[in-house]
Amino acid sequence: MAGEHRRRRRRGQPDRGAGEQAVQVQAPYITRNIPVFELLDDVGLTLIETNAERILEEVGIEFRNDPAALQLLRQAGARVNDERVCFPQGMCREIIQRSAPASFIQHARNPARSVEIGGMSTVFAPAYGSPFIRNLAEGRRYATIEDFRNFVKLAYSTPHLHHSGGTICEPVDLPVNKRHFDMVYSHLRYSDKPFMGSVTTPERAEDTIAMAKIVFGDDYVENNAVILSLINASSPMVFDATMLGAARVYARHNQATIITSFIVAGAMAPVTVAAVAAQSLAEGLAGMTFIQLTRPGAPMLYGNFVMSMSMQTGAPTFGTPEAAQALNIGASLARRLGVPFRSGGSLCASKIADTQAAYESSNTLQATVNAGVNFVLHTAGWLEGGLVMGYEKFILDCDQAGVARVMLEGIDLSENGQAMDAIHEVGPGAHFLGCAHTRKNFKHAFYRAQTADNNSWEQWVEDGSLEAPQRAEKIWHKMLEDYQEPPLDVAVFEQLDHYVATRKASFEDANY
Amino acid sequence: MAGEHRRRRRRGQPDRGAGEQAVQVQAPYITRNIPVFELLDDVGLTLIETNAERILEEVGIEFRNDPAALQLLRQAGARVNDERVCFPQGMCREIIQRSAPASFIQHARNPARSVEIGGMSTVFAPAYGSPFIRNLAEGRRYATIEDFRNFVKLAYSTPHLHHSGGTICEPVDLPVNKRHFDMVYSHLRYSDKPFMGSVTTPERAEDTIAMAKIVFGDDYVENNAVILSLINASSPMVFDATMLGAARVYARHNQATIITSFIVAGAMAPVTVAAVAAQSLAEGLAGMTFIQLTRPGAPMLYGNFVMSMSMQTGAPTFGTPEAAQALNIGASLARRLGVPFRSGGSLCASKIADTQAAYESSNTLQATVNAGVNFVLHTAGWLEGGLVMGYEKFILDCDQAGVARVMLEGIDLSENGQAMDAIHEVGPGAHFLGCAHTRKNFKHAFYRAQTADNNSWEQWVEDGSLEAPQRAEKIWHKMLEDYQEPPLDVAVFEQLDHYVATRKASFEDANY
Repeated sequence: MAGEHRRRRRRGQPDRGAGEQAVQVQAPYITRNIPVFELLDDVGLTLIETNAERILEEVGIEFRNDPAALQLLRQAGARVNDERVCFPQGMCREIIQRSAPASFIQHARNPARSVEIGGMSTVFAPAYGSPFIRNLAEGRRYATIEDFRNFVKLAYSTPHLHHSGGTICEPVDLPVNKRHFDMVYSHLRYSDKPFMGSVTTPERAEDTIAMAKIVFGDDYVENNAVILSLINASSPMVFDATMLGAARVYARHNQATIITSFIVAGAMAPVTVAAVAAQSLAEGLAGMTFIQLTRPGAPMLYGNFVMSMSMQTGAPTFGTPEAAQALNIGASLARRLGVPFRSGGSLCASKIADTQAAYESSNTLQATVNAGVNFVLHTAGWLEGGLVMGYEKFILDCDQAGVARVMLEGIDLSENGQAMDAIHEVGPGAHFLGCAHTRKNFKHAFYRAQTADNNSWEQWVEDGSLEAPQRAEKIWHKMLEDYQEPPLDVAVFEQLDHYVATRKASFEDANY
Repeated sequence: MAGEHRRRRRRGQPDRGAGEQAVQVQAPYITRNIPVFELLDDVGLTLIETNAERILEEVGIEFRNDPAALQLLRQAGARVNDERVCFPQGMCREIIQRSAPASFIQHARNPARSVEIGGMSTVFAPAYGSPFIRNLAEGRRYATIEDFRNFVKLAYSTPHLHHSGGTICEPVDLPVNKRHFDMVYSHLRYSDKPFMGSVTTPERAEDTIAMAKIVFGDDYVENNAVILSLINASSPMVFDATMLGAARVYARHNQATIITSFIVAGAMAPVTVAAVAAQSLAEGLAGMTFIQLTRPGAPMLYGNFVMSMSMQTGAPTFGTPEAAQALNIGASLARRLGVPFRSGGSLCASKIADTQAAYESSNTLQATVNAGVNFVLHTAGWLEGGLVMGYEKFILDCDQAGVARVMLEGIDLSENGQAMDAIHEVGPGAHFLGCAHTRKNFKHAFYRAQTADNNSWEQWVEDGSLEAPQRAEKIWHKMLEDYQEPPLDVAVFEQLDHYVATRKASFEDANY
């Protein structure tokens, strides 16, 4: 399989002339070098785990419209009544711990961009699933495939994201039943970072795998995770046939899934954090058990995605402390279970990239980073509770992913980091601007946020009194202007074009 | 002394008629119920401590234009050469640990608002020191005593701040040498939360104490901390006579001081975090040693206030990961030393309350809260590197202090928190909106940010498409309209008026 991959890689070399610039490859993901921040101790976490087991045994989880799933779970020891599946205490944990990998590599088209998911790794991916986009020039409108391609290109261009994501925005101008071809194609062509697959029907999952096989090779895909896919529970305590069907396809092909309990607390779970955490874990354990029974050893993550809600209007709310607490507990529970964890991002309810958006996003992203989340979907672009993908928000969020990277890399305690020579050299009352240590280190001394204006007020006024989104607007335009496609193998992409064209022609357009 | 205070308290009862509303008193400070997040382990922290001791011994700290301080330090065992004071290793730590309190109470005019500083307590205070204010209607202009009073009233009115602060903004319309009378008077009259004293000359510190004695009683002040004052080192490794003089006055009267090393990293310390942390600790140890030698047992805090800088322009930068790291180490070092810690806040370089401001502020405030900072100056209002106090920013920041409170209070693991009854009651596929547990808990279920708009986009447009600062603008106007003075003893305040008038008349106005 490695041989097959290497062959594909060689075929993947640049073929666009000698003037082609070498692609600058940054560290493909972040390796955590600081502790995790855990809000609950062992007693608290054990309580949550015990409650999750009680939910699994006493309440059960429904697996809807999927007799094969029920059959599989019954055979493994669950009690099945109609579509309700009750798991004896400890059953799920035992099955998962028997075969689930603690971490895995998701391979990218460019092997230098493959990411580790799990352990001490943090992987940042763009936001996912918005039907709308927003930018300063156009305001809010439905997203198109052009927007989708733009965001793939932006996620490829920024050093702060490690992953191309999935449905970065919904290309609403394309028929629902064929969008996935263009989305997967865009990820494979306009980026060489790892990507996410279609989950809206099992057939679309099969298409995703077929397209990946064209690029990576058949055997390679069967033996390596090259696709990561988002499988949401229908909380409370339900998995539906669509999600189970897509998850089954990916697991059978040894591709990675994120079993996420997606909860608006107060509506889809109780209003209290400890209850949300237990229910989320119960849902996650049930879903992950299904994956490991489908294919023992298939790579997967536990995910929790918790919003609070406005008890006045029922609207989901973001950046609240309760959501951060639920996220934090989820990360601890995943570590104790021994699986990678997905949660968080730069979430907000704000309609625009204003102060509210930034506070809410930062509350979520910092909780995400401190808790030790391994795969961070929605790192950049999220607005309006996920309904809108914001161009300027994307750029502003990327800057914060850069801040997070420096935090995660920890503190340099080397001799150069200690700089005792500089302190001796300069001494009391003098300044360090010109000392040898400063001259040696100034280029990389402090994180520089691309979107921040640190100038004097007078200078800022002279520069047009721009707000942060206006600076971000210039940056994304420039990034799209400067974008260059990653090297690709023309023959491979001709094959991919052919596959897409043939498949698209084989059935009628439909908007479902 | 307690009797004297109680007498004053009785005198402080409402006397403005029967229609007077009872003052609603919230929890006066936050008691931490979650762990601290420490970026460095014992090995790392020991290294920083060792380097601080080396700086103290090998480089030394200058105490400028203050022969009495030099004399005091020499007698205690330091080597003094001209104004340079070198401390044998371990000397400062030993002197501090011999007498410094690990925590103390700062008493407020209203005893229900007294705060604990140190230990597991977090106290939020407004920003400090800005010559300018900004609001949406007027833009940026010099601050006046009217602004100062407004901010005292806002800090009094919000439940999210526990402290009235000090020089919330500079009343630039008043002569420099008499401003302190109006500032201290405003804190004492328009709020009953604890406050900070004048430090710009020793005489002004004496005035602060005299005014406090009128309100609290002479003996009470001598025996209890009722004033907290900010003493900054002139980094690198210098204390000047003004700060030493003010610190001496407060310490002699048993009032609390914050010995803060105020560092723009790269200019006033090396560009690396480990070096900044060691230098800051050395400066703090030297200053705190001076305090404990001046009056053993005087309440005090170690403070560090670290900015990074733009290596292109020299401008200080905020919300960077390096500043958060230095803050985090400082908190660990203070705990190991056994003294309360001050740092952080909602710091930013942004000129306005935009996305940049919020991201930078949140990066600082969350690092502050997670590290376990005890006294948080600059929690609300800070803009433009501290040059500007923002009205809308103040309100937006207060909301985030509220988020921080919920985080610090930790997760409810009671039976009600676990809500297993609700999960049993509702079961798979149903919703929790109407269940008994939700009905019982919905009023206090989730933190509600006053400034957040969580409505649908359509509703938000109908409401005028307001940005967050526009909502905050309405809130501060309403708070000032609704403001009612805390109950006061007319006789006491007549005495205070008389003191201020007499002192003001006793010397000429001057702007230095």
